[in-house]
Amino acid sequence: MIKVAIVGYGNVGECVLAAIEASPDMVCVGVVCESCVTDCPWGLRPYKIVTDIRELGEVDVAILSVPSRCCEDLARKYLEWGINTVDSFDIHDQILDYRATLHPIAREHGVVAVISAGWDPGTDSMIRVLMEAMAPKGITYTNFGPGRSMGHSVVARSKPGVRDALAMTIPLGEGLHRRMVYVELEKGADLEQVTAAIKSDDYFVHDETHVIAVPSVDDINNVAHGVHLIRHGVSGRTHSQYFEYKMRINNPALTAQVLVSLARAALRQRPGCYTMIEIPVIDMLHGDRREIIRRLV
Amino acid sequence: MIKVAIVGYGNVGECVLAAIEASPDMVCVGVVCESCVTDCPWGLRPYKIVTDIRELGEVDVAILSVPSRCCEDLARKYLEWGINTVDSFDIHDQILDYRATLHPIAREHGVVAVISAGWDPGTDSMIRVLMEAMAPKGITYTNFGPGRSMGHSVVARSKPGVRDALAMTIPLGEGLHRRMVYVELEKGADLEQVTAAIKSDDYFVHDETHVIAVPSVDDINNVAHGVHLIRHGVSGRTHSQYFEYKMRINNPALTAQVLVSLARAALRQRPGCYTMIEIPVIDMLHGDRREIIRRLV
Repeated sequence: MIKVAIVGYGNVGECVLAAIEASPDMVCVGVVCESCVTDCPWGLRPYKIVTDIRELGEVDVAILSVPSRCCEDLARKYLEWGINTVDSFDIHDQILDYRATLHPIAREHGVVAVISAGWDPGTDSMIRVLMEAMAPKGITYTNFGPGRSMGHSVVARSKPGVRDALAMTIPLGEGLHRRMVYVELEKGADLEQVTAAIKSDDYFVHDETHVIAVPSVDDINNVAHGVHLIRHGVSGRTHSQYFEYKMRINNPALTAQVLVSLARAALRQRPGCYTMIEIPVIDMLHGDRREIIRRLV
Repeated sequence: MIKVAIVGYGNVGECVLAAIEASPDMVCVGVVCESCVTDCPWGLRPYKIVTDIRELGEVDVAILSVPSRCCEDLARKYLEWGINTVDSFDIHDQILDYRATLHPIAREHGVVAVISAGWDPGTDSMIRVLMEAMAPKGITYTNFGPGRSMGHSVVARSKPGVRDALAMTIPLGEGLHRRMVYVELEKGADLEQVTAAIKSDDYFVHDETHVIAVPSVDDINNVAHGVHLIRHGVSGRTHSQYFEYKMRINNPALTAQVLVSLARAALRQRPGCYTMIEIPVIDMLHGDRREIIRRLV
């Protein structure tokens, strides 16, 4: 059995636990979560809760279900302690640097770090690469949503006068998106001023953006999300090759399941730091390799 | 530059040449094709044509664009001669045995064999595995077509009274298919007898099958094909996760491009025999790895 530690216990962490419990080859050896120590969530009752992963004894792999900005410090530390790590670091333009940072640390300590294991970056990245392998020339469009954008919601929430915000990403086609921003205003805040502040932010300035006041963001929140990837490409000299990938999913549940599948894969790689496109997809599944080939190839 | 030999020059072989010519990191060092020696196709004029691959000098990888039943003999021989091989062996229930046969030979001679590199088996297999990594429990449906089934066409053509046949696979949903068989009859042949012979064959007996006489099979032939893969699954304890993959493609052009992308990947694996699901998808693309990660992850 693979001994897994969960680090962080938010939306995703909770789903990571469910995915581990559903995996026949894994056991959760505990959860690293400061707030859970004093206020233990119901689902964690059977588990050891600690503030330092070293209190958990032997850990094969740590799943970092924490915000992207917290990943590097944790991963560095755990790798140095000889623990494999998996995270879903999702700041696209920092992934290469992050990989370059962790790679030598992982190598030096004989362990594996899998980074950016989620759906985008993650499984979508694998689909984009596979589509290019099938049609090297062409255009790929990644159409997100409809679904909540965590990054855009945080930015909208940071504006003066906004108590809470939900930014929905609406696909318009060809990789273009509309932003529907639902804001719960502080008492006395002015919707026009809030709207101007949101629309002029770098996160929103390039997209069609609508800001709408609602009495309660919590009442309209929904973790459903999706993607529609399209490639129009050329195989060899043959044009008009057409590929599509679509999903409608519960966002934290999918992210968590990908983290768990990659925790398994991590143990099958040589020391180093990997993104998902660098890992054979068979390594992500539980079970006998020959049986997987027989059943799915 | 990767030195590639093409073995066999039918529909797929011709597209393999086009895909190599379009690859910035590859050069075709020649074609192994008995019939081409005496009757050289126009596109092969600039190339060396031989009947024995050893006449081509140094070859990094041989792409076997030959029928599945011819793959094993060629692959064994080439691997023993220290040449990496790639094929699109597509007899699903023999893939495991074929892999087990080639693996020790490849290992012994320090080379790589990639088998079943096409779209099904091949890229579809990768999608099926990836979908299970995202939702380990659930049902996947592989819906083929509309498009020509090579296997079913050959079986229909083998019946007495049939000069030529085209068996189209029509998707009915949930992995069920209808077979539309267009037959060009021999003079005096009886359509009812031909229909009975086709419908009672193991290849057709489980599916709804229609047999239609046409004056010329060649006039209705079309290499377009497609697939629609659907998975309804469960991530952790979360149901209703929904995934789809769809493509509409030129069949030989796609198969050829996948062979060429996997010829590149073959050179990046350790000695042994691999199906596509055992190979990191990044290895299939030309270019700097960091740049691929930056652009597509």
